[in-house]
Amino acid sequence: MLQSKLFTKTRREAPKDEVAKNAELLVRAGYIHKEMAGVYSYLPLGLMVLKKIENIIREEMNAIGGQEVLMTTLQDPAIWEKTGRWDDKVVDNWFKTKLITGTDLGIANTHEEPLTDLLRGHINSYKDLPLYVYQFQTKFRNELRAKSGIMRAREFLMKDLYSFSRTEAEFKEFYEKCAVAYLKIFERAGIGAITYRTVASGGSFTKGFTDEFQALSSAGEDTIYVDKNRKIAVNKEVYNDETLQKLGLNKTEMVSEKSIEVGNIFPLGTRYSEALNLLFLDETGTKQPVIMGSYGIGLGRLIGTIVETLSDEKGIIWPESVAPFKIHLLSLAQGDGETKSAADNLYKTLTDKKCDVLYDDREARAGEKFNDSDLIGIPVRIVVSDKTVKANRFEMKRRTDTESKLVGIEEILKLA
Amino acid sequence: MLQSKLFTKTRREAPKDEVAKNAELLVRAGYIHKEMAGVYSYLPLGLMVLKKIENIIREEMNAIGGQEVLMTTLQDPAIWEKTGRWDDKVVDNWFKTKLITGTDLGIANTHEEPLTDLLRGHINSYKDLPLYVYQFQTKFRNELRAKSGIMRAREFLMKDLYSFSRTEAEFKEFYEKCAVAYLKIFERAGIGAITYRTVASGGSFTKGFTDEFQALSSAGEDTIYVDKNRKIAVNKEVYNDETLQKLGLNKTEMVSEKSIEVGNIFPLGTRYSEALNLLFLDETGTKQPVIMGSYGIGLGRLIGTIVETLSDEKGIIWPESVAPFKIHLLSLAQGDGETKSAADNLYKTLTDKKCDVLYDDREARAGEKFNDSDLIGIPVRIVVSDKTVKANRFEMKRRTDTESKLVGIEEILKLA
Repeated sequence: MLQSKLFTKTRREAPKDEVAKNAELLVRAGYIHKEMAGVYSYLPLGLMVLKKIENIIREEMNAIGGQEVLMTTLQDPAIWEKTGRWDDKVVDNWFKTKLITGTDLGIANTHEEPLTDLLRGHINSYKDLPLYVYQFQTKFRNELRAKSGIMRAREFLMKDLYSFSRTEAEFKEFYEKCAVAYLKIFERAGIGAITYRTVASGGSFTKGFTDEFQALSSAGEDTIYVDKNRKIAVNKEVYNDETLQKLGLNKTEMVSEKSIEVGNIFPLGTRYSEALNLLFLDETGTKQPVIMGSYGIGLGRLIGTIVETLSDEKGIIWPESVAPFKIHLLSLAQGDGETKSAADNLYKTLTDKKCDVLYDDREARAGEKFNDSDLIGIPVRIVVSDKTVKANRFEMKRRTDTESKLVGIEEILKLA
Repeated sequence: MLQSKLFTKTRREAPKDEVAKNAELLVRAGYIHKEMAGVYSYLPLGLMVLKKIENIIREEMNAIGGQEVLMTTLQDPAIWEKTGRWDDKVVDNWFKTKLITGTDLGIANTHEEPLTDLLRGHINSYKDLPLYVYQFQTKFRNELRAKSGIMRAREFLMKDLYSFSRTEAEFKEFYEKCAVAYLKIFERAGIGAITYRTVASGGSFTKGFTDEFQALSSAGEDTIYVDKNRKIAVNKEVYNDETLQKLGLNKTEMVSEKSIEVGNIFPLGTRYSEALNLLFLDETGTKQPVIMGSYGIGLGRLIGTIVETLSDEKGIIWPESVAPFKIHLLSLAQGDGETKSAADNLYKTLTDKKCDVLYDDREARAGEKFNDSDLIGIPVRIVVSDKTVKANRFEMKRRTDTESKLVGIEEILKLA
């Protein structure tokens, strides 16, 4: 893409009320726009990152048998009343609205209830199970405070998968499969090294533990205790001698760290299936409630975590897997001539090879182009200048490197 | 995909309160689920159709220079107050909600205001224009009645593009380009033959005409007058001698038809740019308001129109471009054996060639499989039975054909 055509501009400063590093950098680089506290629009570069994250997650959810749907934002209170979750005292972060006729409607903060209700029309027998349904859908949460940028937004895109199983054993088998898929997702998204499967409290759903996936970051709202050798962590909430003993962990090996919850998986048991009457006939002809589980990843939070943990003082550093482009090509040509032709030709060569390139063809000072490139954070920067053209070379630098090097065309084509 | 794994089941009957043919067929075939009046979830097959429609539109919008973004549902009233559109008396189909603190928020029914406001941060000079920004985003409309299935929903996915131009001439040039792109979209989506560019009233934005794209259908809410030879139509609202004369149309050639509005394009002039202060410095250094246009296509309405206009008494008939699968493979094998192997092998051969196949491998009666196949409406049906295996042939039938024929494998591979 030609940068001269990209409508977004980089900015020196973030909005005054923005305190989170992730949103500050993403706004300044033109990835997102702050509509109000906790509400962000995705601009072209941001949407490219979001789509790449979405595709990684989709591939991994399909690989474990997930079937994708798209549920609705508007919610019928009747379904939620059956589980007791319509009440604002039970769920304190609802946004609600009304039909013109005055009827109350919910604005979805999660989708257990409507999906459980929907599946009553499609599940009858044990032969219809197990099944795994997921979606990428916007959630709305009426947060009192929203100061963590895109990491805790009032409106955000979430992948939520729900499992429907016949037995506890079948449920647990999938639960472990999904845990493995989650680690793959975080690995592919570039934060595998800092992300820990973390034992957490079961909350109101289960007496046992549940699992969170926590990425180490000083910007995190959570505290976890990490055994770095065994690559396992325990949430502060349940960090005590009893837990450590159960898990066979040693207090002296555990280090306290701040962290960001980038995903969670947890058993729902039969809480929703019983309340909403999602039953199946087992092999003996007896009606049984379906055993459910829930598996969430917030896409904005994942993007925010990547920015919080991988950026430097100059700007964002995207892993290639989620970067909006693979290569940032900077032309330092002054007007038309040999240098501009060389840059134009390289752009054409790379895009012909289906390589994603952002080509900074703007009439701007070299310093501005270098600063913008560091801020935007595309993994590889290639500079074409009078000097490089004279040497029949290109200047190449990875965003993570401090020094650039002169390389020939064959080196660059290896990237494509 | 194995149909035995697909979680949705077909249904004999639609929900009792469903009166629209499009929703009735889509619900019965397992494409969508009715959450409440005017609110539908997309199930796996439905989401596949939605994504194919989305991709067709995206390709055509990118081809005319569109840049994709994703704006938010939650809306700050302050922006809408500046254009006078926060008032329920002015815009009578708002859904509104509140922050926990009591502050009012809007739930977006359209996005002119926030996009115009956003672009103030990215447009300064004439060099930043023209630009074209679009998104696929859910719109919420508090409709008093919602009886047209997915054709007039309270929550629906829309492609909305907005153009930002320097001069009236530049605006008009894009407007015509977009009209051509729209006709391509409807052609690719299979309703080109029945869709007319239709002259309509300018509404509150312009004194001149605007353009609608109307698909002929007895289920339509609109009435248009069509000149079938010249492939042009006039909305009833502006159908009078003066209009006909202006357009050089002859009353005797015009036929009255019911129709569905599948898209519209219209000038916004400087209504929003002036109210929200979106100005640019022209070549002479003078501040000018940006000239805007708006271009919408409702994806659900387009799907609904395809179903309304192309289905028959047995079910849906998808054009290949938007069908969830290209081929519906039906195995009539009784248990394991030669017939099942032949069906399994054909499924493998086709999927290895990346051909999208829904394979009905269920243990079900032949009649049920045939009925389901007609209802689901995949363009080509291939049947493998004891009879076809004995003849070393396959039974093939297009959904639009009445008779099937026996063909060899080479004929089938031509489809892949």
